[in-house]
Amino acid sequence: MPHHVAILGASGYTGAELVRLISTHPSIRVATLTGDRKAGQPMSTVFPHLGHMNLPDLIAIDQVDWSGIDLAFCALPHATSQAVVPSVPRHVKVVDLSADFRLHDSDAYETWYGKPHAAMELQQDAVYGLTEFYREDIRSARLVAGTGCNAAAGLYGLRPLFMEKCIDFDDIVLDLKASVSGAGRSLREHLLMAEMEDSVLPYSVGGTHRHLGEFDQELAKLADGKPKVTLTPHLLPSTRGIVMTCYVKGVPERIHAALEKVYGGEVFIHVLPFGQVPQMKHVRASNFCYIGVVGDRRERVATVIVVLDNLTKGSSGQAIQNANLMLGEDETAGLMAAPVYP
Amino acid sequence: MPHHVAILGASGYTGAELVRLISTHPSIRVATLTGDRKAGQPMSTVFPHLGHMNLPDLIAIDQVDWSGIDLAFCALPHATSQAVVPSVPRHVKVVDLSADFRLHDSDAYETWYGKPHAAMELQQDAVYGLTEFYREDIRSARLVAGTGCNAAAGLYGLRPLFMEKCIDFDDIVLDLKASVSGAGRSLREHLLMAEMEDSVLPYSVGGTHRHLGEFDQELAKLADGKPKVTLTPHLLPSTRGIVMTCYVKGVPERIHAALEKVYGGEVFIHVLPFGQVPQMKHVRASNFCYIGVVGDRRERVATVIVVLDNLTKGSSGQAIQNANLMLGEDETAGLMAAPVYP
Amino acid sequence: MPHHVAILGASGYTGAELVRLISTHPSIRVATLTGDRKAGQPMSTVFPHLGHMNLPDLIAIDQVDWSGIDLAFCALPHATSQAVVPSVPRHVKVVDLSADFRLHDSDAYETWYGKPHAAMELQQDAVYGLTEFYREDIRSARLVAGTGCNAAAGLYGLRPLFMEKCIDFDDIVLDLKASVSGAGRSLREHLLMAEMEDSVLPYSVGGTHRHLGEFDQELAKLADGKPKVTLTPHLLPSTRGIVMTCYVKGVPERIHAALEKVYGGEVFIHVLPFGQVPQMKHVRASNFCYIGVVGDRRERVATVIVVLDNLTKGSSGQAIQNANLMLGEDETAGLMAAPVYP
Amino acid sequence: MPHHVAILGASGYTGAELVRLISTHPSIRVATLTGDRKAGQPMSTVFPHLGHMNLPDLIAIDQVDWSGIDLAFCALPHATSQAVVPSVPRHVKVVDLSADFRLHDSDAYETWYGKPHAAMELQQDAVYGLTEFYREDIRSARLVAGTGCNAAAGLYGLRPLFMEKCIDFDDIVLDLKASVSGAGRSLREHLLMAEMEDSVLPYSVGGTHRHLGEFDQELAKLADGKPKVTLTPHLLPSTRGIVMTCYVKGVPERIHAALEKVYGGEVFIHVLPFGQVPQMKHVRASNFCYIGVVGDRRERVATVIVVLDNLTKGSSGQAIQNANLMLGEDETAGLMAAPVYP
Repeated sequence: MPHHVAILGASGYTGAELVRLISTHPSIRVATLTGDRKAGQPMSTVFPHLGHMNLPDLIAIDQVDWSGIDLAFCALPHATSQAVVPSVPRHVKVVDLSADFRLHDSDAYETWYGKPHAAMELQQDAVYGLTEFYREDIRSARLVAGTGCNAAAGLYGLRPLFMEKCIDFDDIVLDLKASVSGAGRSLREHLLMAEMEDSVLPYSVGGTHRHLGEFDQELAKLADGKPKVTLTPHLLPSTRGIVMTCYVKGVPERIHAALEKVYGGEVFIHVLPFGQVPQMKHVRASNFCYIGVVGDRRERVATVIVVLDNLTKGSSGQAIQNANLMLGEDETAGLMAAPVYP
Repeated sequence: MPHHVAILGASGYTGAELVRLISTHPSIRVATLTGDRKAGQPMSTVFPHLGHMNLPDLIAIDQVDWSGIDLAFCALPHATSQAVVPSVPRHVKVVDLSADFRLHDSDAYETWYGKPHAAMELQQDAVYGLTEFYREDIRSARLVAGTGCNAAAGLYGLRPLFMEKCIDFDDIVLDLKASVSGAGRSLREHLLMAEMEDSVLPYSVGGTHRHLGEFDQELAKLADGKPKVTLTPHLLPSTRGIVMTCYVKGVPERIHAALEKVYGGEVFIHVLPFGQVPQMKHVRASNFCYIGVVGDRRERVATVIVVLDNLTKGSSGQAIQNANLMLGEDETAGLMAAPVYP
Repeated sequence: MPHHVAILGASGYTGAELVRLISTHPSIRVATLTGDRKAGQPMSTVFPHLGHMNLPDLIAIDQVDWSGIDLAFCALPHATSQAVVPSVPRHVKVVDLSADFRLHDSDAYETWYGKPHAAMELQQDAVYGLTEFYREDIRSARLVAGTGCNAAAGLYGLRPLFMEKCIDFDDIVLDLKASVSGAGRSLREHLLMAEMEDSVLPYSVGGTHRHLGEFDQELAKLADGKPKVTLTPHLLPSTRGIVMTCYVKGVPERIHAALEKVYGGEVFIHVLPFGQVPQMKHVRASNFCYIGVVGDRRERVATVIVVLDNLTKGSSGQAIQNANLMLGEDETAGLMAAPVYP
Repeated sequence: MPHHVAILGASGYTGAELVRLISTHPSIRVATLTGDRKAGQPMSTVFPHLGHMNLPDLIAIDQVDWSGIDLAFCALPHATSQAVVPSVPRHVKVVDLSADFRLHDSDAYETWYGKPHAAMELQQDAVYGLTEFYREDIRSARLVAGTGCNAAAGLYGLRPLFMEKCIDFDDIVLDLKASVSGAGRSLREHLLMAEMEDSVLPYSVGGTHRHLGEFDQELAKLADGKPKVTLTPHLLPSTRGIVMTCYVKGVPERIHAALEKVYGGEVFIHVLPFGQVPQMKHVRASNFCYIGVVGDRRERVATVIVVLDNLTKGSSGQAIQNANLMLGEDETAGLMAAPVYP
């Protein structure tokens, strides 16, 4: 018997990506789509590429009939989610794709997001949605917080190195290349095609990117003393995909071994042979994450390169993967499509 | 019980697209991959984005063990296919993606391709693979000839107008915009990123594009006297997708009605409400074809705009759709994934 | 002695392009830059790529000191220009880049722009800025109306064919491919990189594109009876450049001869040898316009392909070319830089 | 009286860029163009975007009449240049754009380029073409070696920090983002539009990029002991432009001060206010180089971001800048055009 889901905030890119992935999911059906500003409109008006599908019209959140809904995907803007989730009936499981429930510490949240959290008790219960590392907690969770897409890319590269203690924790440089869809469907000048095509735009530089809060939280659990991470994001002239280039201090071969050990059994994380590097497009529109490790002419210096699709493995695909666990389905259901290349 | 298929010429883009689509197909399995120049190499060397999959290495065509193979997809270069298909055992059904079996008339073939056909008897048997119009013939065919991707786009727009006789047959202008992947993975200067980005390149102008042979053959069947079609192709600064803008003489509303009538029951062909037009990206990486019709300030002048993905509905998706029919499977199996947007 | 100019509305793309072209102009200096919403800001805040230049800060139009200003470039939004130009002192020549003064007939203006013109007397005086055809009028004009970028592309292809009467006037199809910068620096969803990359978007279809008013006005002068032009614009996944594909009925060789005859002595209009076609990028960021003519397998059918850069020859370059004439300078001053390729 | 130059190897991108820049140069004329494989062809066949110019046809190098030639730009492939330059008459000054004369130490050359140098004596005489730092040597040089485009970007960011000794020399991480035109007009699969669009491709990883030889040579001159530089290049989905993100250890404000001190009087090097970062497109198709410095939440950690156009400031623009010095012209002649944006 299929599970019925609601997608709250379906008028954004992560909402459309959820619909796309569910379109071939064997046991999940879209029962409700909400979009407050666009309430009353058919989905085909907001996303014409879904016009051939038989989807419910967008409604306002307060119009949702929760009876018969098993799970809700919250693809709402940051700060909005924490206002909405408390009102979702307890029988409905929630996978949140916003930043609202990623940080468990309320001070940390306030530091990075500039104001107190509106639903702290839920914040404490929420499970961090990095599936491969919180699988069992997610299985039994009622609320899962989707990770930042850039945080996911970085943590997939770094976490095993912390677990295996094979790098220096106090000198990590992350050079991020991120595609424009990561900024969502928002009308900002720097996201115009004319501004970004054939360009690269550094942003949130100087240690100000909010996903650093996730790095601090997740890596501190594994490190003696706070790890020191520098992150410089660059916006790319591309639509989908993230390349996280991690510069770490350690023995390259040991680093590669650590990644292979931790991800040996994983379906979606693919560690390349030592010395090989992945291309951003190699995972396009898929739930796969490719990781490569190379050494350097300098001793104890290694570069770990992680690529994933910010809209799939970085958000909506990850959300479905977690929903599969929460609903007792095969974790890979609906997510095995090969990358779109070229 | 799954059907086992061979992909001949798997080292090109249509080969990779076949693998991608089969990766989520419920009843088709890839048993053999061939690539003469790359024989002996793992598929992950030729297409690293498939590195996480468990695929057979590429072998030479003459090494194929045909026992247990139900169907072969021929993704070989034009002219090569006609040399290979005759040697495929009769028990193996064939879906050819090259241009070799599209034209039934040997003179027409020689006119457009510059030399006599090497397998004329097969050429006569082959069924033209425009699924929605040759469904029954395809079901029982042993050899199906995949259509040209641009021909498919144009014929989806024009064929119903000929069937319903609602346009002038002797004055049709087709303005084609095609993406670079249509040229395949070939090393030609004009296909370099530096040459094509932010450019548009008219090519095969002046009525020389080979797909005109398909228009002549298919439309002549429906027209009294040879239809007169002008086609001007333009290469786009994009990877996937075709926009065929058809300028025809007829009553716009009647033209729209004809398209709705013919495609009313079709899953993959989506006719937009009158006056609405599709965007190329609305069908990206999917097997769907969107069609829009608009009128003009001039009387009896209409513009029909057809969009599809050249690698999916235009070739590999169409090939799977036809294979589904030939193998007695649901025609839509493995092809219902929503378009990738953005 | 250099001429001093004011650029009104310098915060848009045509404003920035004017500054770029003037940066190497031998006899024009930027004296004043206005931008009402951005008044008070340095130009480097609005356009960081001009940060190394020594430019005046943006001011409000009513703050302009007109003494010592020889000419004003009006790069204001449509409808704003007609409100501002009347207040420009008579000693200042004006080159307007908006649509406000292109149509001489007040009814035609109201038909295409939806409301009465606010400065009709000026509208009558204005000279249409298609330099190669109104050179002498422009030399002595006080107000020149820059043409629509798409109208310029189409008229460069069609005007000689009307002058030489070598095509049918009642059956002209124009298929336009236009880049996103033509829409200006405006925050609209369809102009986002994520929406347009790898896509093509038909727009203003069905004979509704406002530049048709310019075609009607300019071609009617040369035709017995109103010419019949169909125009279908398509937005491209590119930043700069226009390709106008003109489908006309006439003898291709005669059409080519007409273009060569009319443009024989022109510096900026380059007619390719018969049968050759231009690529959009061949004129990138330059004031050149390339034109190619090809025949067809159908008799008396020809395709004329015109390419130019919408921001240069289509607007700001054209504006400088006209300003050169109005100021008594060499028409080509500051405009001879070769195209940027690749 | 104008200087006459020969461009050897004019059929590549740097050759075309030289022609573009010279098209508006007040005192340099193109007298000869060579292209061995394309000898006998008009330049308009090789680069149609130059079709409107009156250029000499391409000839073979041994056909060049050197009388009357003042300077030769060698835009030949690596290794070819060292075979050709010795045969250029002594009265002809040479600006080489290849890698052949960048390294002064023959062992270093052999290490990085895999075989002994064919013209060691010339190699010793050659002046490294980083104009702002070797201005006087270049003025009197007969042979100037153009720098690697990526080396230029990195050295503009690092050299002042070494001169002012405000960073640690033994822990420098350079994350390079480079556009496809840097690889030249070469037919390689990974340079196809279909492969690179919407992708990022790490290459020459693990300390194997040849430009490291230039970093070692140039920085060793300023450091006590060999500096330790890690470089990870990434190919971008763009045509022109380089972003070099330099991760260094030092006081950010002191680093910014060092850059402002060294470049205070420079026309082409623009240091942004502390905390601001440049966008790749801000210098497009221009000879300008923009540099930004930001601090980090970690102490003594700074990010220096350098952007330039690989074909202009990175090679052909730099070559003209050096030629201007060698010919006794104003260093900025022909190079002051503002960047092309958008």
